[in-house]
Amino acid sequence: MSDASIEGLTVALRKFAEERDWDQFHTPKNLATAMIVEAGELLEHFQWMDRGNREDFSARQREVVSLEMADVFLYLIRLADKLGVDLIDAALRKLEVNALKYPVALARGNSKKYTDL
Amino acid sequence: MSDASIEGLTVALRKFAEERDWDQFHTPKNLATAMIVEAGELLEHFQWMDRGNREDFSARQREVVSLEMADVFLYLIRLADKLGVDLIDAALRKLEVNALKYPVALARGNSKKYTDL
Amino acid sequence: MSDASIEGLTVALRKFAEERDWDQFHTPKNLATAMIVEAGELLEHFQWMDRGNREDFSARQREVVSLEMADVFLYLIRLADKLGVDLIDAALRKLEVNALKYPVALARGNSKKYTDL
Amino acid sequence: MSDASIEGLTVALRKFAEERDWDQFHTPKNLATAMIVEAGELLEHFQWMDRGNREDFSARQREVVSLEMADVFLYLIRLADKLGVDLIDAALRKLEVNALKYPVALARGNSKKYTDL
Repeated sequence: MSDASIEGLTVALRKFAEERDWDQFHTPKNLATAMIVEAGELLEHFQWMDRGNREDFSARQREVVSLEMADVFLYLIRLADKLGVDLIDAALRKLEVNALKYPVALARGNSKKYTDL
Repeated sequence: MSDASIEGLTVALRKFAEERDWDQFHTPKNLATAMIVEAGELLEHFQWMDRGNREDFSARQREVVSLEMADVFLYLIRLADKLGVDLIDAALRKLEVNALKYPVALARGNSKKYTDL
Repeated sequence: MSDASIEGLTVALRKFAEERDWDQFHTPKNLATAMIVEAGELLEHFQWMDRGNREDFSARQREVVSLEMADVFLYLIRLADKLGVDLIDAALRKLEVNALKYPVALARGNSKKYTDL
Repeated sequence: MSDASIEGLTVALRKFAEERDWDQFHTPKNLATAMIVEAGELLEHFQWMDRGNREDFSARQREVVSLEMADVFLYLIRLADKLGVDLIDAALRKLEVNALKYPVALARGNSKKYTDL
């Protein structure tokens, strides 16, 4: 059982790949590719829905969707490990960038891209 | 400054959306869509590269790549919040599924899909 | 000016790549990657919309969207050329497969995947 | 049997959707979403490969890959129909844009984005 944290998952994924001699396949390019493939599998569950709210899925479907999200997450963690990126830290920096790009006064109730605000 | 954890980011993203009245746009379907769009922007940096190793990027490019990864991560966290999914827990469950799908003896040095092993 | 057909575009893309010495980058893998990156750029225009109907876009936006669709199309043509696939022929075969997967009686008014019909 | 052309496929897809009462699901947004999902399924076949050349696939795999390409193509045609876009014409216009963005003298042997040339 892995430690329940991003660091724990990072270590578990390293061990998983080493045991299977998969590092040869896990180039950052391939991991970014595998991640978008999983993001597509996740999106498939929503493609003909209006909103895809929690209650639009059965319990079984929600578990399937959760595991597709896990696939994206695991490849993201693995990619971050290979590139030496701290995901939490990068996310905090990006939140600050977004706050500057989308000031409340301009962005309120508006879904336009910041370049069109 | 947000708490440096997935929970902290979840709360920060809720506040960010509320302040901008963006919950109306943040349906799970739209968040899964926005996430794959960001995964595509990330992948663009690798598309003509052989491997995309850390040393293949300049410091400035690595920062750009880190922030694209952050975008994927932030939408994934937001989607998990909307669907009531615990990302770490889902990832641990998926790791166990993967261990069953890809036993070391069969998967070693092999990149085939489990259905073809 | 190229011949206005898939064959004409195939020849024009070959010439475009040869003149720029880009065949070295145009592996099928890289072309499939570039295509999904463009599909993501296209999807970005729809991500916060409800339906994205023709009338939801300005004339300028529709032109931008058209050119994103063209990007997907051009990479698809280029990939088909590299893999020796006849796109029209493959599409006709896929239509027949779909007709078997989704018989009118079962699929009518239903967006379920064929495996769940 | 449909007419072997983009126009023929457009008409066949309209009929296919009408017979199944699927127009309600075929909003441009949903079609752009379904298209990227198919682009992901196509990309999956390449994700752990170096180049994904024609000879890297068995005859059976090549047929599977061809049908994934057909899926992307069919959704692209359907989307173009819904948005009133002429795909061939848009592709010809995009080729001209690309010729301006990537002049031979600057782009030769170089995979950089035009903004970095």
